[in-house]
Amino acid sequence: MKFKIKRELLLEALNKVSKAISTKNLIPVLSGVKFELKKKKLILTASDNDITIQTIIESDKDEDFNIEKEGSIVIQGKYILDIVRKLQDEYINIEVIDELKILIYTDNSEFNLNGINKNEYPNIALEESKKKIVLDADIFKDIVNQTSFAASHEETKPVLTGINFNVVGDVLECNSTDSYRLARKIIKLKSESEENYNVVIPSHNIVEFSRIIGDNEKVELHIFNNKILFKTGNIKFESRLINGTYPNTSNLLPDDSLMTLSVNLEDFYNVVDRVSILTSDKEKNIVTLETNGDILTLKSSSAEVGRVEEKMNIKKNNKEDIKISFSAKYMMEALKSFKAETVDIHFVGEIKPILIKSKDDETLTQLVLPIRTY
Amino acid sequence: MKFKIKRELLLEALNKVSKAISTKNLIPVLSGVKFELKKKKLILTASDNDITIQTIIESDKDEDFNIEKEGSIVIQGKYILDIVRKLQDEYINIEVIDELKILIYTDNSEFNLNGINKNEYPNIALEESKKKIVLDADIFKDIVNQTSFAASHEETKPVLTGINFNVVGDVLECNSTDSYRLARKIIKLKSESEENYNVVIPSHNIVEFSRIIGDNEKVELHIFNNKILFKTGNIKFESRLINGTYPNTSNLLPDDSLMTLSVNLEDFYNVVDRVSILTSDKEKNIVTLETNGDILTLKSSSAEVGRVEEKMNIKKNNKEDIKISFSAKYMMEALKSFKAETVDIHFVGEIKPILIKSKDDETLTQLVLPIRTY
Repeated sequence: MKFKIKRELLLEALNKVSKAISTKNLIPVLSGVKFELKKKKLILTASDNDITIQTIIESDKDEDFNIEKEGSIVIQGKYILDIVRKLQDEYINIEVIDELKILIYTDNSEFNLNGINKNEYPNIALEESKKKIVLDADIFKDIVNQTSFAASHEETKPVLTGINFNVVGDVLECNSTDSYRLARKIIKLKSESEENYNVVIPSHNIVEFSRIIGDNEKVELHIFNNKILFKTGNIKFESRLINGTYPNTSNLLPDDSLMTLSVNLEDFYNVVDRVSILTSDKEKNIVTLETNGDILTLKSSSAEVGRVEEKMNIKKNNKEDIKISFSAKYMMEALKSFKAETVDIHFVGEIKPILIKSKDDETLTQLVLPIRTY
Repeated sequence: MKFKIKRELLLEALNKVSKAISTKNLIPVLSGVKFELKKKKLILTASDNDITIQTIIESDKDEDFNIEKEGSIVIQGKYILDIVRKLQDEYINIEVIDELKILIYTDNSEFNLNGINKNEYPNIALEESKKKIVLDADIFKDIVNQTSFAASHEETKPVLTGINFNVVGDVLECNSTDSYRLARKIIKLKSESEENYNVVIPSHNIVEFSRIIGDNEKVELHIFNNKILFKTGNIKFESRLINGTYPNTSNLLPDDSLMTLSVNLEDFYNVVDRVSILTSDKEKNIVTLETNGDILTLKSSSAEVGRVEEKMNIKKNNKEDIKISFSAKYMMEALKSFKAETVDIHFVGEIKPILIKSKDDETLTQLVLPIRTY
């Protein structure tokens, strides 16, 4: 293997795969990045057994990437990334000598690294499905940003640590819940899916993937029995799926509502934020909301610290009033997921879920369960 | 106590004292900020028994601060800071009711906090000395930035965790060392000090103080037997001193040199940085420097990872050559302390300290001990 490449090109590719470089020492070869130079392409692969990321640099486009000899080798991920990041030359030469020695050099710098034989690297196929689902990158990122925060962090219920992707016909429904709140995003696909799917993708993995998606790209979803392959631009990203049946969350959503409140999103967020200050030590930081005509009062108190009360003007759809308590943290996270100026908060009753929606984005529903305070 | 104040004014003052709010629960009252409203002034004090910070807001300047009733109370530091930070109103009202209840309110927000009696707060005098030493803020910040990093973090030799301030006549000499390197800054005072001093100030504390100094201010040093009071603008900052005799570091500085190297600071820094990549796991990350005429070679190697070699062009003051090994981390930290474009590196011999100076700033000397590699 021998090639010369523009530093920026290689750095960009290494940054993309770097999230999959294993930092655990269980399988030493997985702390490396596999370089495969063949057919005018450099393929970089990294995997930690949970996710695999692969990206391709093509050589036929311009003179920024010059191949002298094909070949493959595994290079320690941490060092190659640091070297390419810290070199200041415009071009970098990389060459394999004596089979397992890697020479990385520029005019004044010369690095000799010990490599690992490519045959020791696990064989990861990253196969594509013919029945792929295609989404716009910005829609895919919205799905992740608007649902992932509501997934559980507790490994006791593994299925809740993922985001549920449910495809029926031309409808993609994404749910995430930690059983105290629910985030739901419903997208209409551009074309009918050939197959229906109901899978759970680890929330942490899908968040990592969404960070390396470029703008104005498409995202392809290739769904298999126990894994999913995302494809975007020149990146392939594979994640395992979580086994188990995702709970049916539809019965949580109330069909009627007692009263609906329209509030300015930012103002309401700030009020909830301030009212929760005194309860910030507590895990759930409970605040109580009370309406009285067109005045909303938010309160919280803590025996040791004190109490707080805020008022704001609101619009309601009828004369009903409500008194209800909830977690300020969950309410704030739900509010933050909207990009709208105004949100509608639907109340069904004191001990019924609170629904947050916005007329500016009908695809998103957030649900926060109330907390009984007496 | 009752007053109305511009939110920004109070927030700025609280931010200044906040670093001294105790986060340990040993003495509960120290987790509070003492508010003293008297003689048209609001005095805020916070202390964690190691440092004390006090700042004063004067009321006679404009209408941004309106006093209705004098008085004193201690308010939980964490909550008052969060409340003032998150309120969005221009003015805040603060009032003590029923002796120990604090009411903080604006048009729509109302916080009721439990206060602590001011008599429970320790009596901290923050007395000034008549024999103060005065420095410009930018010079004081330079002293801290250019020496503090070289202080030890190990509590086994407490005296080395501080910065030594040594005043003789009109000369202030500041030293810090962890016994592997030494940073020395020598400042000529504007006037002769009435008394000579030789004290050690905890490095951590002086760094905290330097962060809250405004630009274009003066810094006054009031030195006592076991404490030092810094005064700048409307801030008083008191720190304990470290007991013990600071080692005499002057004998470490060689008087002659075998050869002096002039290098571009940034280029040399980057070369050391890259050469140390492969040794980054090791604590000392040793690199070896070798000159051969006007070529400098820097090398390092690690049996498991590989080896690296960089070359750069240099200017020397004579024909002598050197081969010497040192810690890349210590060399980089020493280099970073200079604001110059070019530095001179003085070599005495393979096992003698390396001296770094700059013609652009004669007040600063950095010394790095070599490491024997055989």
